[in-house]
Amino acid sequence: MSVDQYRTTFRACAINASRHKPESIKVSLQHLADATGDDERIDNYGSGELIESFEREVAAMLGKEAAIFMPSGTMAQPMALRIWADLAKTDYVALHATNHVALHEHNSYQILWQLKGCELGEAHRVPMLADLKAAARDPLAAILLELPMREIGGQLPEWDELVSQSTWAREQGIKLHMDGARLWQCPAAYGKSLEEIASLFDSVYVSFYKDLGGIAGAMLLGSADFIARAKVWQRRVGGTLYALYPYVIAAREGLAKHLPGLPERRQQARWLAEQLNQLPGISTWPAVPHTNMFRLHIRCQPDAFLEQGERWMHQHQVALIPPPYRTDADALHCEITIGDAFDVLSEQQWANWIKQFGKAMANTLNA
Amino acid sequence: MSVDQYRTTFRACAINASRHKPESIKVSLQHLADATGDDERIDNYGSGELIESFEREVAAMLGKEAAIFMPSGTMAQPMALRIWADLAKTDYVALHATNHVALHEHNSYQILWQLKGCELGEAHRVPMLADLKAAARDPLAAILLELPMREIGGQLPEWDELVSQSTWAREQGIKLHMDGARLWQCPAAYGKSLEEIASLFDSVYVSFYKDLGGIAGAMLLGSADFIARAKVWQRRVGGTLYALYPYVIAAREGLAKHLPGLPERRQQARWLAEQLNQLPGISTWPAVPHTNMFRLHIRCQPDAFLEQGERWMHQHQVALIPPPYRTDADALHCEITIGDAFDVLSEQQWANWIKQFGKAMANTLNA
Repeated sequence: MSVDQYRTTFRACAINASRHKPESIKVSLQHLADATGDDERIDNYGSGELIESFEREVAAMLGKEAAIFMPSGTMAQPMALRIWADLAKTDYVALHATNHVALHEHNSYQILWQLKGCELGEAHRVPMLADLKAAARDPLAAILLELPMREIGGQLPEWDELVSQSTWAREQGIKLHMDGARLWQCPAAYGKSLEEIASLFDSVYVSFYKDLGGIAGAMLLGSADFIARAKVWQRRVGGTLYALYPYVIAAREGLAKHLPGLPERRQQARWLAEQLNQLPGISTWPAVPHTNMFRLHIRCQPDAFLEQGERWMHQHQVALIPPPYRTDADALHCEITIGDAFDVLSEQQWANWIKQFGKAMANTLNA
Repeated sequence: MSVDQYRTTFRACAINASRHKPESIKVSLQHLADATGDDERIDNYGSGELIESFEREVAAMLGKEAAIFMPSGTMAQPMALRIWADLAKTDYVALHATNHVALHEHNSYQILWQLKGCELGEAHRVPMLADLKAAARDPLAAILLELPMREIGGQLPEWDELVSQSTWAREQGIKLHMDGARLWQCPAAYGKSLEEIASLFDSVYVSFYKDLGGIAGAMLLGSADFIARAKVWQRRVGGTLYALYPYVIAAREGLAKHLPGLPERRQQARWLAEQLNQLPGISTWPAVPHTNMFRLHIRCQPDAFLEQGERWMHQHQVALIPPPYRTDADALHCEITIGDAFDVLSEQQWANWIKQFGKAMANTLNA
């Protein structure tokens, strides 16, 4: 059983514990057309009421002076670091080993953006104030912190710890940039508003297609001066598109539709993690999720698990365990993010499926 | 009269000699939804049948091995030059002073992409073989040629001249990259196929929103090896978007709808230029358009021309002369590109409006 085949069956399941309910292109575009006012006019190279009013709306929500809509976070984040580096007249920036910039962008921050990366803490845990201080042996322009940290199961630092890091960085004149791809998950975890959380940072990147179900797209936020510089860089990097309206409308709709439900998604994630942790051989990371996402460590015979798991999904049309992002000799590693697909069943129904799944898979799991 | 006010009235005219008929966002999205098959599935980070089959279609049309859909030409072009520079182990590239890369990208090719630009010919004319040879005193990785050259009125070099440039560059081992933002206009001018024209180049960029009426987006084409390298760079630069389907579907529809009509658009442009050249004080550049675009030089009292012109447009709801891209003390400079908006009237009707416009504006024009 290949992971690809497992993935195909996983995606085709009518019922899925992870993410948002999928749409076809036709349905997605029809929804966007329906969500558009008759008098809304096409944006042009980043200008126009549609895009500018949405930028103002998100800036106000995060308590920042200005914002700029971007095609992607991969574009937005090294750009933010480049701006801070130019202003500080140093190319050193500190980032965690598991950040998207370090892991998934072919070292663009070095090769294209001419930045120098400094290590920040250890790969398996959130950075602490002592880690920031250690990184600052180099003359740092900026420190990138991700909230929550996707690659370590959506973990967050304690609020007081985060405040102390922000306070210290400001004292040092080091800019703090937030990778807020999933910032939307944080208010429920911290009991703080988006604005309170963003106030600890000089620049913030947020994404519209992960928890919010948009098509693609991101936003970079900060002071008016910072965003004016970002507009120049956005043109340089080819991100000032002739028109962005499908992304802007999808982002606007996604924010309205999905943001209010995220506290409930967090509760659902914690409940689901508790259920899964009761199956022999399965443990979640973290044990109690901080947000509406977590990772799974499944001690098993991987081939047998994938084969039986695929058969079980195919038979019941219920998808519980996503395709693994990593396969070891004796374990699989998976990630679950709760979206609106979870609402299709009640907790009692999910509990029954999990119990049945556990029985069916017991012979492949190593307790 | 400000140019902005003139532009507002120009855009609001029901009848317009330039470009395609405008759409609202709602209508555009509805068209896209209607043009999508029920079973078409959302692309993901540049993969999926929708985007890959469209890349294959355009690659076949241009006779290239491979292609990659890009959010913008500003992203695609310096990337192509960077790839050629890396392979040639030199950062020198030659480009014309009026190319988009040199004029409209805040020197991204130098500042972000770390390339060194060499002059190619003179700003007011197409580059000749002698100009390529002169530029090659530096160890060039690549030469960028734009077909047609937008900033000089859509001019094209003679076909035999272009062939001799391509032959010479290949002998020298210098790569030829085409800025084909408006390549679609060239077959009618050269009496050659897209494939024949593209065969003279090692890499080609084309755009989908100018003559083809898409939302935004571009494509980079070349050998399989070249495009494999571009995929890495696209991820680096943040252009590998989570989904691109609105742009892909709009590009696919635009290609089918507008490409077949471009030879007729060229005829219409030549006819319109002939008419406008008969008005005292107005001359087109070039005198006989090479393609379906040209520029206008209007010797006039600019303030009076804009004020009377705005009033005339407002009264008749007919837009003939686009807002100027440049204003001198005694002249205005404008650009006309013929699209499907021209079809709203017959030539006889256009001729009548031009005659009436000429009379109404005579006192502002300097013969």
